[in-house]
Amino acid sequence: MRSATPADKFTFGLWTVGNPGRDPFGEPVRPALDPITIVHRLAELGAYGVNLHDNDLVPIDASPADRDRIVGAFTRALAETGLHVPMATTNLFSDPVFRDGAFTSNDAAVRAYALQKTMRAMDLGVELGATTYVFWGGREGAEVDAAKDPMEAIKRFREAINFLCDYARDQRYHLRFALEAKPNEPRGDIYFATTPAYLAFIETLDHPEMVGVNPEVAHEHMAGLNFYHVVAQALEADKLFHIDLNDQKPGRFDQDLRFGSESLKTLFFVVKLLEEAGYQGPRHFDAHAYRTESADGVWDFARGCMRTYLILEDKARQFREDPAIQGLLAEIAESTGDGPPTVYSPDAAAALQARTFDRRALASKALPYERLDQLVVELLMGVR
Amino acid sequence: MRSATPADKFTFGLWTVGNPGRDPFGEPVRPALDPITIVHRLAELGAYGVNLHDNDLVPIDASPADRDRIVGAFTRALAETGLHVPMATTNLFSDPVFRDGAFTSNDAAVRAYALQKTMRAMDLGVELGATTYVFWGGREGAEVDAAKDPMEAIKRFREAINFLCDYARDQRYHLRFALEAKPNEPRGDIYFATTPAYLAFIETLDHPEMVGVNPEVAHEHMAGLNFYHVVAQALEADKLFHIDLNDQKPGRFDQDLRFGSESLKTLFFVVKLLEEAGYQGPRHFDAHAYRTESADGVWDFARGCMRTYLILEDKARQFREDPAIQGLLAEIAESTGDGPPTVYSPDAAAALQARTFDRRALASKALPYERLDQLVVELLMGVR
Amino acid sequence: MRSATPADKFTFGLWTVGNPGRDPFGEPVRPALDPITIVHRLAELGAYGVNLHDNDLVPIDASPADRDRIVGAFTRALAETGLHVPMATTNLFSDPVFRDGAFTSNDAAVRAYALQKTMRAMDLGVELGATTYVFWGGREGAEVDAAKDPMEAIKRFREAINFLCDYARDQRYHLRFALEAKPNEPRGDIYFATTPAYLAFIETLDHPEMVGVNPEVAHEHMAGLNFYHVVAQALEADKLFHIDLNDQKPGRFDQDLRFGSESLKTLFFVVKLLEEAGYQGPRHFDAHAYRTESADGVWDFARGCMRTYLILEDKARQFREDPAIQGLLAEIAESTGDGPPTVYSPDAAAALQARTFDRRALASKALPYERLDQLVVELLMGVR
Amino acid sequence: MRSATPADKFTFGLWTVGNPGRDPFGEPVRPALDPITIVHRLAELGAYGVNLHDNDLVPIDASPADRDRIVGAFTRALAETGLHVPMATTNLFSDPVFRDGAFTSNDAAVRAYALQKTMRAMDLGVELGATTYVFWGGREGAEVDAAKDPMEAIKRFREAINFLCDYARDQRYHLRFALEAKPNEPRGDIYFATTPAYLAFIETLDHPEMVGVNPEVAHEHMAGLNFYHVVAQALEADKLFHIDLNDQKPGRFDQDLRFGSESLKTLFFVVKLLEEAGYQGPRHFDAHAYRTESADGVWDFARGCMRTYLILEDKARQFREDPAIQGLLAEIAESTGDGPPTVYSPDAAAALQARTFDRRALASKALPYERLDQLVVELLMGVR
Repeated sequence: MRSATPADKFTFGLWTVGNPGRDPFGEPVRPALDPITIVHRLAELGAYGVNLHDNDLVPIDASPADRDRIVGAFTRALAETGLHVPMATTNLFSDPVFRDGAFTSNDAAVRAYALQKTMRAMDLGVELGATTYVFWGGREGAEVDAAKDPMEAIKRFREAINFLCDYARDQRYHLRFALEAKPNEPRGDIYFATTPAYLAFIETLDHPEMVGVNPEVAHEHMAGLNFYHVVAQALEADKLFHIDLNDQKPGRFDQDLRFGSESLKTLFFVVKLLEEAGYQGPRHFDAHAYRTESADGVWDFARGCMRTYLILEDKARQFREDPAIQGLLAEIAESTGDGPPTVYSPDAAAALQARTFDRRALASKALPYERLDQLVVELLMGVR
Repeated sequence: MRSATPADKFTFGLWTVGNPGRDPFGEPVRPALDPITIVHRLAELGAYGVNLHDNDLVPIDASPADRDRIVGAFTRALAETGLHVPMATTNLFSDPVFRDGAFTSNDAAVRAYALQKTMRAMDLGVELGATTYVFWGGREGAEVDAAKDPMEAIKRFREAINFLCDYARDQRYHLRFALEAKPNEPRGDIYFATTPAYLAFIETLDHPEMVGVNPEVAHEHMAGLNFYHVVAQALEADKLFHIDLNDQKPGRFDQDLRFGSESLKTLFFVVKLLEEAGYQGPRHFDAHAYRTESADGVWDFARGCMRTYLILEDKARQFREDPAIQGLLAEIAESTGDGPPTVYSPDAAAALQARTFDRRALASKALPYERLDQLVVELLMGVR
Repeated sequence: MRSATPADKFTFGLWTVGNPGRDPFGEPVRPALDPITIVHRLAELGAYGVNLHDNDLVPIDASPADRDRIVGAFTRALAETGLHVPMATTNLFSDPVFRDGAFTSNDAAVRAYALQKTMRAMDLGVELGATTYVFWGGREGAEVDAAKDPMEAIKRFREAINFLCDYARDQRYHLRFALEAKPNEPRGDIYFATTPAYLAFIETLDHPEMVGVNPEVAHEHMAGLNFYHVVAQALEADKLFHIDLNDQKPGRFDQDLRFGSESLKTLFFVVKLLEEAGYQGPRHFDAHAYRTESADGVWDFARGCMRTYLILEDKARQFREDPAIQGLLAEIAESTGDGPPTVYSPDAAAALQARTFDRRALASKALPYERLDQLVVELLMGVR
Repeated sequence: MRSATPADKFTFGLWTVGNPGRDPFGEPVRPALDPITIVHRLAELGAYGVNLHDNDLVPIDASPADRDRIVGAFTRALAETGLHVPMATTNLFSDPVFRDGAFTSNDAAVRAYALQKTMRAMDLGVELGATTYVFWGGREGAEVDAAKDPMEAIKRFREAINFLCDYARDQRYHLRFALEAKPNEPRGDIYFATTPAYLAFIETLDHPEMVGVNPEVAHEHMAGLNFYHVVAQALEADKLFHIDLNDQKPGRFDQDLRFGSESLKTLFFVVKLLEEAGYQGPRHFDAHAYRTESADGVWDFARGCMRTYLILEDKARQFREDPAIQGLLAEIAESTGDGPPTVYSPDAAAALQARTFDRRALASKALPYERLDQLVVELLMGVR
């Protein structure tokens, strides 16, 4: 398999390769990596870009001078390596101030602070060249449904996004927003639990054209949902503005596993869809190395994410070129009779009402899906 | 607790109380109930209405004469009892013809047949007085993702709904459509897996104002999602056109348990929301008696659904009148400082950017959620 | 990939390839297959054997004469084809009499009937040559925990198994029992929800040496458990008497998918373990074709199960022969210092208490698991 | 509801009320509480005892002098308050040294260190009066199944427990061991994923009589299992040596919610079982306050756990005294005919084989479970 190149548009977050291996039951196992080192290592591996939360780069308590010094050094590293920052986002979840939400907090002052912090993080992202701005509302949820009104929470979230859209327009930022859903963790339940919840919400905004979604494999798999179907709905709505690739076993804590380490079949269809549907955005790996891994292993992790993507991309090509598979698909695509009218008219409706169908004949068409699926599995296993 | 009355707007489906107790591993345990008997029994229990799929009443192979005779007898039973048929729907899942989908089938002739069957079922529903028409696409999904294109499936579903909206308008039917999501079962994955997937889809229709959603407790619980939050998003979008009340343990097969038999706390918040947010539609119990139950026990099941609703409705009133709970809510609602600007302006943005926040002070506000939640639990247990 | 032969010990159930495609929401889509046909088709495909529930072959209401005629014809088909019946079991779940349990029913007469039915089914199984007898207690559970005492249920189940062990010994049947767990479906909760629950139970029987387990992929995956770990515990306890191979997405209804169609990585480790740990029993595919499949496609399904097993078996060989993988495993296996004493003695304990450990040094050993796992994934995808 | 008293045997862990509210996405929100303060506060609330991991009290790097000073102060606080330490355990999960396991680590030196650390922690526990010693193998598992042999892991775990049993006996410690299962988190999969896995394992130990289980609500609920059934199997095997009470929504990250805050019905049956089956051990609340909670709220949390237990205990009494419920139970308990023989004999078997059963008559017994379950729900809601 060829190596990754920037043309593949692979990106990682500072927080992903920089993850020190802390978890709810254990202390960090790896030293913190400084952002400059990350930039150089990612560039060597053939990545296209690096993404960040404001506080991945600039500490929450940094003075303006510190901030400028840090950003300057980071910008120089980007220039030296050619690495891009295509996406930026705000950390609205680590600090205790956000423990009951940021944009949806019951405390109006917290909401104001969250808005200010986001404006500043947008300024930073744009300064670094970001054109996509992600919103993951990790604390926007509840354990105690008596304490927060979920309809009010939606309204508050809408006000915040509308305000920030206006801010971006006012600043003439070339930014699109991408909303990222997750069903739970760290909150008992997070509002907008699945990607489609944001797709619906977007239509209620003042500037829906500026806002899309950022689906994440792990987040939809946590709820046992079919990620391929989720991405398809986002693409069909022209709202796939970004994508978070990783892996996850269903029905458990957020694992953020190396891309393709668990769900080969689903992710094959996702890669195939991204490549065939004309998605032009970054392929962002929002994952981290196992906590068992040492500092060096982090780069094995990063290489693995990219390699598996390229392998699956190649298998998608094989799928398109496989005569047995394509033959079955052609057979499956055939209809046993005329379809419904494409446009409504009273006459078309009357004609359809009058039509006679032979239900048993329609039901007798062979659908050789076992054979097709077996071919896909064998293609995935490299034995075709 | 008082008994149910038609003013409570409780409804059941013919298929719910009529469920004979067949399951994937066992044969029916109860005799089929004829629709006339169901109407009379439901009326005696204080129900408002009875809902149906076309083939719950009229067999799929009925002649026009049989159809008219059956519908006539049923209409008379409705008239005698005063029971309404507020909702009707189409069975697009039982017959083998729909084994790979109805509106999303790869076979255009199946799609045409599904459309015809739905038009006829709409005619029947309207004849019986229905004003809500539900679409549950039980076969609209896949086990083999290679076999069906999920973006194409959305387009096909859209064409069908657009056509049927036009048909309803053309016929001057006073019908609103309510789309019902489910993540899986009987298909490996069903398209539009969650209610918000339909909320997003509706905005892409030709007549979005005619179309809303019909969330079901069990269907969202199967994916481990917070049903209260789902209903809240539907209400906030003014799209709660119908609701299917039942119960379900998360992460397993579709149980359709008696309302309130598992998830008392979540369903307390749902009932409270329905009653306080002005929802005017039916409270439909889409559930069935345990397979262990004999014919008589079906009516215990039906009574139980309604009783639990009324008990939770009363507890919602207690919640509003409980001074300790309301005191805590008032305390929680207080802000520690000014909120964000409500409308964007460059000046407002500049003022917010310039504002100084004391993060530690903001984080120090007490949020006595353990106390509040404990009060809710005690209210639910009747010890307040 | 070579074709299956009887030496591979692949078996199917009459109920698996004979599954007519009925589900909770739909009618059968395929005609019933007669057992004689199944025997011939399986033999042609290279299977070793066919397994059955009593009523898969002999209807529950058959007269003794009918029973003998049916069994005679079936026996002749076995003789003609060389197919074996290595395993038999009892249908204690389809008939309404078992709607609240068989061996654990509250009704002592039902328990007596279940015992009689099992003795007769054991007689039939032994007559057909079975040496393993499976117990899957599909109705041994509850939706209403108030109605059944779960401790009493264990006692009742124990009495039944003890009685049947004695019966087998008394009849000098060469039978071993294999207990099969499932967490839920068709019951809300089934007793002995996971394989280890039976491993623990077995130790409390009168003849524990006669009784082992029959783990099923789908049943453990429904609870999100690691099937490889489950099989390993059964093997380590010398209790893997049978195995049910299929596939399943976690956290949903029992799918019984074609072996290897979902969980390639887990099932690779399972196949590797079966082949390397000296498991000698049948590889039984307890799955069925999709409901979309026509009659012919059932045999595609059966072929696919066997092919994927053979492919994974071959990949297990590659794993053993891959120098990069084996090199990493050797590196991982190295210890950084002496291990614990292997046998307890006061001196060994005192020596261990006195030993000094350098925690930071121990924690610094590299564990290149990302690299190892990526090699496994690439081996699975056939790109090594 | 009366207040808790030590006679209720309620216990908390230092790590539970002392939890500072750190999670995978956020920093601590509450100051660390010193153990002395915890002891005094718990005593004031009516608790019976406080449990601990070694490092909850004594830092992992403490000098022997520091250790003795800390233990001395703690012992004095216990004496002053009358609080007991009924259970102790080892922290074998926080330090990076255990990142790939303790007793099951591939590194023999880590296994030796884990054993030493446990001996010392047992010494500490016994010094403080503990009679139960819990083993939760939080790191005993894998993300990468290629890296660890699950059969070898069982053997290693067995060696460790056997060694420690011998150590306890040799030291004449009055200690029983209680093994605590969990399916995943922090590891991708943890060995011995469910309580029954330990029940089976115990039978293979050198001193099985010394070893039982410590089931935890949240851990079994994570896998969607019925905790009441799990506790029943442990009790039936006489192996319920300890119990961890808390709450959890199924199919998600480990929530450790306040006891009774989610699963009222299941936990009602658990409390009823503990009270009626003669369980004499502590009722340990292994939970923590929400991360939204301030320092004071921790004690609301603790009070809530105990209050809900007492309320459910009282409801169990009501259940026993409710004539309608008891009447239904009596009706359900009746058999429609003779039961199976209680002891095997050839004659008994022959008689049973010869018996004639009327399957339809047996299937016609009414099982009014909907009515029964509704009564239970109403009792739980305090409206009976």
